[in-house]
Amino acid sequence: MNEQAMLNRVVDEKSYKRLLRELEQYRKQHERLRLLFNVTRNITRELTIDRLLLRTMDEVKNVLNCDRCSVFIMDDENQELWAQVAHGGDAIRFPSHLGIAGYVATTGETLNIPDAYADHRFNPNIDKQTGYHTRNMLTIPMRNKMRNIIGVFQALNKFGGPFTGDDEELLDAIGAIAAGQIENAQLYEEQKKTFDSFIETLATTIDARDPMTAGHSKRIAMYADEIAQVVKLTDVEREVLRTAALLHDYGKIAVREAVLTKKGSLTKEEFEHIQRHPEFTRLILQKINFSGKLKDVPEIAGAHHEKFDGSGYPRGLRGDEIPKLAKILAVCDVFDALTSPRPYRDRMNFAKVLKIINRGASTDFDDFFVAALKKIRLDRLLLILEDEQKDKLRPGDLSFLSSYTLTDLMFAYAEHAPSPEQQKLVSVFTKYYSSGHDQPHSSFAL
Amino acid sequence: MNEQAMLNRVVDEKSYKRLLRELEQYRKQHERLRLLFNVTRNITRELTIDRLLLRTMDEVKNVLNCDRCSVFIMDDENQELWAQVAHGGDAIRFPSHLGIAGYVATTGETLNIPDAYADHRFNPNIDKQTGYHTRNMLTIPMRNKMRNIIGVFQALNKFGGPFTGDDEELLDAIGAIAAGQIENAQLYEEQKKTFDSFIETLATTIDARDPMTAGHSKRIAMYADEIAQVVKLTDVEREVLRTAALLHDYGKIAVREAVLTKKGSLTKEEFEHIQRHPEFTRLILQKINFSGKLKDVPEIAGAHHEKFDGSGYPRGLRGDEIPKLAKILAVCDVFDALTSPRPYRDRMNFAKVLKIINRGASTDFDDFFVAALKKIRLDRLLLILEDEQKDKLRPGDLSFLSSYTLTDLMFAYAEHAPSPEQQKLVSVFTKYYSSGHDQPHSSFAL
Repeated sequence: MNEQAMLNRVVDEKSYKRLLRELEQYRKQHERLRLLFNVTRNITRELTIDRLLLRTMDEVKNVLNCDRCSVFIMDDENQELWAQVAHGGDAIRFPSHLGIAGYVATTGETLNIPDAYADHRFNPNIDKQTGYHTRNMLTIPMRNKMRNIIGVFQALNKFGGPFTGDDEELLDAIGAIAAGQIENAQLYEEQKKTFDSFIETLATTIDARDPMTAGHSKRIAMYADEIAQVVKLTDVEREVLRTAALLHDYGKIAVREAVLTKKGSLTKEEFEHIQRHPEFTRLILQKINFSGKLKDVPEIAGAHHEKFDGSGYPRGLRGDEIPKLAKILAVCDVFDALTSPRPYRDRMNFAKVLKIINRGASTDFDDFFVAALKKIRLDRLLLILEDEQKDKLRPGDLSFLSSYTLTDLMFAYAEHAPSPEQQKLVSVFTKYYSSGHDQPHSSFAL
Repeated sequence: MNEQAMLNRVVDEKSYKRLLRELEQYRKQHERLRLLFNVTRNITRELTIDRLLLRTMDEVKNVLNCDRCSVFIMDDENQELWAQVAHGGDAIRFPSHLGIAGYVATTGETLNIPDAYADHRFNPNIDKQTGYHTRNMLTIPMRNKMRNIIGVFQALNKFGGPFTGDDEELLDAIGAIAAGQIENAQLYEEQKKTFDSFIETLATTIDARDPMTAGHSKRIAMYADEIAQVVKLTDVEREVLRTAALLHDYGKIAVREAVLTKKGSLTKEEFEHIQRHPEFTRLILQKINFSGKLKDVPEIAGAHHEKFDGSGYPRGLRGDEIPKLAKILAVCDVFDALTSPRPYRDRMNFAKVLKIINRGASTDFDDFFVAALKKIRLDRLLLILEDEQKDKLRPGDLSFLSSYTLTDLMFAYAEHAPSPEQQKLVSVFTKYYSSGHDQPHSSFAL
């Protein structure tokens, strides 16, 4: 075709414009789908519900170009809707039929309200309480694959005018993905909660077999977590440590009750029998399929009676042969044993406790973790010591103690001529520490 | 603008064609993104790894219009890749550096091979083994959010020619979503496995406190699951039943060991003490945050000593006041007690066991579940009875027994002039059932 012929083949403007309009529509749809894909990729990577919700709200805000987004989740059991609040804080909860969100959750209708204050379903009280000014809002129901409504998406104050039909479609599509993710996250967390409370209950029942040790495993887990925070362990290490702490005495289930609870001194055979409990702990826990991050729990829990100088049991591990987290358990185990009341006496004098712990540094314990123990803030320490009767602690005293650590208390005890401040410190701490403690429960603590 | 002027405003064909091409591209991209969104919505709804993988493979096959798709998952611990096989069967496993999948997993490169047999990296042995003929293949790495390779996607035999660059992009995008979902599913299953093995280990240790009951809880769980299958319980009911069965005697941890293991008869006080164990079970399990589908476990486990006529304990529930799943536990509990060897004797004669169970129908038990018990196939029953020494069971005998149920055996026992077939049935079953059983372990079964 020559140039002249080509110029003659012309197209009228109408067709051209129609084509341009079509192209523009595809461009827009394409952009929306691209956004949707990005949102999807980002939200499908979170499995904990809090992070998932925060991430989803952020993504929606960006994609819809609006000021706020909330995700309200149905709590069928309590007939409530709840929403995560950005950056921590307690969740908001309200009856599941109230307000715009409740209307959408109940009817399954999408509500696109261009002027909130002109709509009778809008409750201006929330704005009054929060100081926010709602102009326009888009609220859509979220459905799971069985088409049940599991929550509500709400976007507020679109920049530059009310939400469009396109926004509705986009939010609906995001909702379809988010619903599946939210259900997954709920299942995951439910399972995790059950597992965690299972371990705690187990620890309680194990401790309860021996009246001397009621509450022991739970306290060890708390002391250990304080040390973990002082030495800045990772979140995973903290979880491993907590699990190992709660289960460290599980092997006692294989120790004969008559030996475990014997009053008076043990025979050599009985003593050897009871000393097998960390080994039993390890062997039993090894049967559990602790996978992934928890896989070292059996080793750690089973090494809580090893000593730094190699004189411990069952293996006589020495120094850094002992797993780091087991070293923490060892310090906490002894600390709790020394500071617990016994059936025949109240708690050991605290100065003496400190002396024994200090003496054990570098022989029984890794002194790095003894040092960490001594950095625990006194208010937090007291909350663990007095776990059973926390409500007796006066807020003023806790606040006073929060400026000091165990080290400060140690110096105050050691001082021949303590300052008034040191005297007050000892006196406030001792008031709780040495006040008559109930005999530990000898009956099963149900 | 008048008509004449409009006709004069013309556009040359070149621009028009350019526009058409652009439009066509947007149409294609739009179609791909729409597919991608559908795939995403479908795969994000599966949280168990097997279903997730099968679903993903199906979706990819459809979207890429090819004959097969495999997802290979990295098992870092064993340096292997594994793949789910469609419709059940064991997963395939191989060292993670082998073959095309291994190459992609190791290098992180995408491989688009238009002619497999012309590529030296292709291993034709797999085709030889499977009888499949690979023509072309597209293999891409899957990365998690830390950009680590967690697996490989492989699509085989695109209909009508090799895979295109567009296919590569699409598979890459699906991979990005699937990677997150696979990691989520792995976390979920890991957690579930840990929880399940935890409960099993717990059941074992509880049973081990009393040598009379070694293995009891595990066997009850197995008998109960057989009944569950006979009466066609749902998967969720089966999971609840299994959990309740494994934990039904957990309250024994609160029973004094001296009472639990006392030889000879119990005093009235001791008997009352031991009878509190189902109540202890319920109370302890209630402290566990059994949420969602497992929430009735404490009630069910705590009611395993209730009797149909109201003469059981602790509550004296009657008839349908007793939870359905607890009725199943009650039958299985007695059946296991009767068929377990005791320290002072071998197993009870099986004809007598059947007599006691039959006599208990409608008084102790709901006869619906007694009937279900009697429908259990004898090979499966024997596998549970002989759980500790399963390997002694001859395959030929199991195969013979698989044609009969407990009812058949009962008739055979009751027959005054049993047929040769009935005689064989009794003789094969009795050979295992009554052959000397080890005394139950009196030491802790580690």
